[in-house]
Amino acid sequence: MMVNTVRFALVVVGVFGWSMMLPSATQVGLSNKVLVFPYETDFSFVSLIPQKEMGLRAFTLCMRVATELPEDRQIILFAYRTADYDELNVWRESDGRVSFYMSGDGIFFHLPHITTFRTSLCLTWDSRTGLSAFWVDGKRSTYQVYKPGHSIRPKGSILLGQDPDKHLGGLEAGQSFVGEMADLNMWDFVLSRSMIQAWHYGHRVPKGNVFDWGTMEYELNGNVMVVDDD
Amino acid sequence: MMVNTVRFALVVVGVFGWSMMLPSATQVGLSNKVLVFPYETDFSFVSLIPQKEMGLRAFTLCMRVATELPEDRQIILFAYRTADYDELNVWRESDGRVSFYMSGDGIFFHLPHITTFRTSLCLTWDSRTGLSAFWVDGKRSTYQVYKPGHSIRPKGSILLGQDPDKHLGGLEAGQSFVGEMADLNMWDFVLSRSMIQAWHYGHRVPKGNVFDWGTMEYELNGNVMVVDDD
Amino acid sequence: MMVNTVRFALVVVGVFGWSMMLPSATQVGLSNKVLVFPYETDFSFVSLIPQKEMGLRAFTLCMRVATELPEDRQIILFAYRTADYDELNVWRESDGRVSFYMSGDGIFFHLPHITTFRTSLCLTWDSRTGLSAFWVDGKRSTYQVYKPGHSIRPKGSILLGQDPDKHLGGLEAGQSFVGEMADLNMWDFVLSRSMIQAWHYGHRVPKGNVFDWGTMEYELNGNVMVVDDD
Repeated sequence: MMVNTVRFALVVVGVFGWSMMLPSATQVGLSNKVLVFPYETDFSFVSLIPQKEMGLRAFTLCMRVATELPEDRQIILFAYRTADYDELNVWRESDGRVSFYMSGDGIFFHLPHITTFRTSLCLTWDSRTGLSAFWVDGKRSTYQVYKPGHSIRPKGSILLGQDPDKHLGGLEAGQSFVGEMADLNMWDFVLSRSMIQAWHYGHRVPKGNVFDWGTMEYELNGNVMVVDDD
Repeated sequence: MMVNTVRFALVVVGVFGWSMMLPSATQVGLSNKVLVFPYETDFSFVSLIPQKEMGLRAFTLCMRVATELPEDRQIILFAYRTADYDELNVWRESDGRVSFYMSGDGIFFHLPHITTFRTSLCLTWDSRTGLSAFWVDGKRSTYQVYKPGHSIRPKGSILLGQDPDKHLGGLEAGQSFVGEMADLNMWDFVLSRSMIQAWHYGHRVPKGNVFDWGTMEYELNGNVMVVDDD
Repeated sequence: MMVNTVRFALVVVGVFGWSMMLPSATQVGLSNKVLVFPYETDFSFVSLIPQKEMGLRAFTLCMRVATELPEDRQIILFAYRTADYDELNVWRESDGRVSFYMSGDGIFFHLPHITTFRTSLCLTWDSRTGLSAFWVDGKRSTYQVYKPGHSIRPKGSILLGQDPDKHLGGLEAGQSFVGEMADLNMWDFVLSRSMIQAWHYGHRVPKGNVFDWGTMEYELNGNVMVVDDD
């Protein structure tokens, strides 16, 4: 395992919240890398810069995730927020369910536990029908209908590791992510079952046009390690 | 994901129970489609029209089913009723067991939980011996002996999604099905183990002579979606 | 599914315990058959006649077994008794453990639950070392040392389905077996791992020299069905 860029990211200039920290410079590309969030903090996170604006009427969001956190601990898995809205939050809830929220009440799925072993997790949603589902290791959950006709607003911030309760602030250690994340990709359309399964097995799929792990622009903040995914 | 026929099915003309609704016209064929029951209701269901009368002395009933409903929620999986009798009801009981009933007391099986991922579920029964079993993903449960000598009466109504407590009425939201059903087939004889396993794996088997998903005649009522089974 | 011999076995001439019943005639051979014990009774069982006397200083006992009984219900799986001793009893205990007893206190193993799906279960014991283990679907439990130097006495009776508390009597419904048993074989030596796995997968192994399912001599008593193992 090689660790790079971490020392830089650990330079923290104050304790007055994350707006006071000196973020690392923007970096590009995470091919064969995994993000390790080693401790529970209220200041460690990774900002992601999308390839295109996130005004979305459909999407597929995929990542590989592993954690040692207890099963009854709430965990933020993905947070996209504009000034007034949680545009797209993905959670592991304290009751073990996995949920997502767009601008208000969320929906909840009974999935296998997220464990110390890596789970490949995708989420699909289409505004036209509202059909939404999680995909665990290539297997689709039951469809639920969620906010047909809704649009995700553009021009917000995307964070891994923390849930900002307001735009650019309000982080809580008790919701933070601790563990490993890798291979996050996002498309502005719904991938087919065969594409999602191909992604799960590491085969070639069309590169994410919102996020592509291999060419990802990101900024490390606080204590996050970029480790060779060996 | 393509959704068809849904708008039509959503035309509801009253709130006085499902006899007041305008059902969709009869439609034919569900190849590569899945029925999505997105919400808990007392008015959404699908009527099935069998290819032959359901006076049965043996049968195999197969379907693929997935649900997000809690494990302690009673769920109707299949309901065939004549004027005075529940001729053939299949339930997931509130204690997690799966059961079936023909005109009176039922029998109960301890099967793996029905989850958000699709379970392939078959039920076989033969009047001559009374031997009955569920088959989960191609594996047979323990045989139980149930109503040897009994016959299922013909000329009733078959519903997915609701349990009619009387002929054409008496629906309860708390028993309704929420989730996905696909690939329902029924034969008027007991399929062999190898045939049931072939069906589970999606290989060719003799088409159901009571119900065949590919050529099924059905009517949508309330809020049921027909979705491409991707 | 073909059912044979059942009508004959159901001839019961009294309610004064199983010594009063008219057993079926001795029958031979259970190839591709499964024994179905459909109800909880204190009178249904199958007597097995061994090919050689059961004075044993080592053995391998294998069977396939499935049950719908609740997980906290004691179940007799195999009973061999001489006049004064339970020579070899195999139980599923009310705490879910699987146990065996030879002439006194038994030993207990934590195995996966015995469920509605068929489990292949073997038990090996060698008097020389006392090493004993259960094998579930070809996987060995941890060894336990049990009664090194002991011998099993010959000239008793072997029963499936009931536990006789005295020689030829004293049956209890609450301990009876309900479910399916198949492919019972017994050898007077300890089979190797590869042989036990071969047996599990239905491959060829040396025929049991104490019991061989294909040529088994047996007598049905009470309500036990012999069904094609389809």
